[in-house]
Amino acid sequence: VGEAEVLVTVDQIADGVHFRLADTPIGKIGRKAVTRNLSDVAAMGALPVGAVAAACLPRGWGEDRATALFDALRTTAAAYDCPLFGGDVAMWDNPLLISVTVLARTGGVPALLRRGALAGDAICVTGELGGSLEPWEGRLKHLDFEPRLRVARLLASDRFFRPHAMIDISDGLGRDLGHICRASGVAAELRAAALPISPAAIALAERTGLQPWQHALADGEDYELCFAVAPDAPLPTEIDGVAITKIGVVTAAPAEARKPLVFIRTPEDVLQPVDGGGWEHTG
Amino acid sequence: VGEAEVLVTVDQIADGVHFRLADTPIGKIGRKAVTRNLSDVAAMGALPVGAVAAACLPRGWGEDRATALFDALRTTAAAYDCPLFGGDVAMWDNPLLISVTVLARTGGVPALLRRGALAGDAICVTGELGGSLEPWEGRLKHLDFEPRLRVARLLASDRFFRPHAMIDISDGLGRDLGHICRASGVAAELRAAALPISPAAIALAERTGLQPWQHALADGEDYELCFAVAPDAPLPTEIDGVAITKIGVVTAAPAEARKPLVFIRTPEDVLQPVDGGGWEHTG
Repeated sequence: VGEAEVLVTVDQIADGVHFRLADTPIGKIGRKAVTRNLSDVAAMGALPVGAVAAACLPRGWGEDRATALFDALRTTAAAYDCPLFGGDVAMWDNPLLISVTVLARTGGVPALLRRGALAGDAICVTGELGGSLEPWEGRLKHLDFEPRLRVARLLASDRFFRPHAMIDISDGLGRDLGHICRASGVAAELRAAALPISPAAIALAERTGLQPWQHALADGEDYELCFAVAPDAPLPTEIDGVAITKIGVVTAAPAEARKPLVFIRTPEDVLQPVDGGGWEHTG
Repeated sequence: VGEAEVLVTVDQIADGVHFRLADTPIGKIGRKAVTRNLSDVAAMGALPVGAVAAACLPRGWGEDRATALFDALRTTAAAYDCPLFGGDVAMWDNPLLISVTVLARTGGVPALLRRGALAGDAICVTGELGGSLEPWEGRLKHLDFEPRLRVARLLASDRFFRPHAMIDISDGLGRDLGHICRASGVAAELRAAALPISPAAIALAERTGLQPWQHALADGEDYELCFAVAPDAPLPTEIDGVAITKIGVVTAAPAEARKPLVFIRTPEDVLQPVDGGGWEHTG
């Protein structure tokens, strides 16, 4: 726009798809509508500028709930230096749906993209993965997560360990890493034993009978960063208080098209394809 | 953003509120989702830069309908130099909802706002008003309207007749002029006999028993421009093939707060308050 590079993200959350209104405080819903977008901004290593929101409220919701929702949108956005500029509200006879658009700027640091990963790169993630929808110590990560804006900015602006490609994990590590692979024309091999597994995923695995690493790979809604970085990059094990874990390597793309691109080496040392193992919102 | 001034509009259209999916070609729905926003851009006298869209599709819609919708969004946006950059799609068990965000730029012409109208200004509108939801000569204006981008830009950049304040008419002339009045700290007096009434509104009035000017005042979804301009501005009666009509004057705000701000002088020479006489989407 004119001389400036403007980045824009849009994301919607709907009752029954991304949250259940009956079980979720309205303030948490408004928070998530904003933080999901901020996680996208983080994935680019960018700085938020401001947000607009469009909401369709169930008819008869009343002013108290509408006010609680807009307060949550506004205060969450403001807390991340991303003022809510305005929006559009309608009412209808259907469930709550909120769409948020965030504008962002590069501020002198070129935006990180999904493309750019090179064969040989290390694959890393921030934080811990899995069990985001599982209550743990009184919180649900998918509602309470911290968008990784600061870590992402520190990564993107570092001259020694700036990632080659980055994405945030919303649909599941396997699926989102697949986006990097397709955009970069590469493949990836993860090690299950290296995944930073959240305590919630470990607890969840006891109930589901899956292995904890399977939850870390596929649950989604982690809102952590996944990035590819030069193998010799002097990456610290922690940035701004957030763990950085190497979980695999980028490999050359397979010769034949349409092969699986993401593989994981299980604790039993079996190399398995990860075929869209993430959570399918739109399934 | 950086050195650039970026304008942003967001607007949503929902099945059962802004259109009826059962009666409306999908292409027209996609068109309207974009043109409603372009009408907002026009109201600022700005130039579109690009758009993003978020859509919640009814589950089971199928690829053909989804493709038709996105083709309509994309081709409509492109036709107005407003490329669709991307978006977010989800599916759910509820009706279709589309939210579109448009970025715009001033391109050296300061944005026109709702505030700035002065007592004594002439109030003008473009085109014809009323009956937008009524079929007329095989078209429905609320679906097929032309956003007034070019007229608005010519108005905004003219040194002799640049408006003091401008808005587009979506909720009805009475209501939208009320927004200008509140933002500008003024009131307004319209003349019913001066309103440019559409043939569709005249036909509609025969059925409803209202007077045609009442439809022109209140129907909404006209997507014409309403603006306040200096009384001595040498305004042509037509710009870029679109009629420009003087329909009233800006007056001083009433002494007491919360009085009606917009009045209309009926053909019977009675001055009536216009109290939010527009169509209430959210009613």
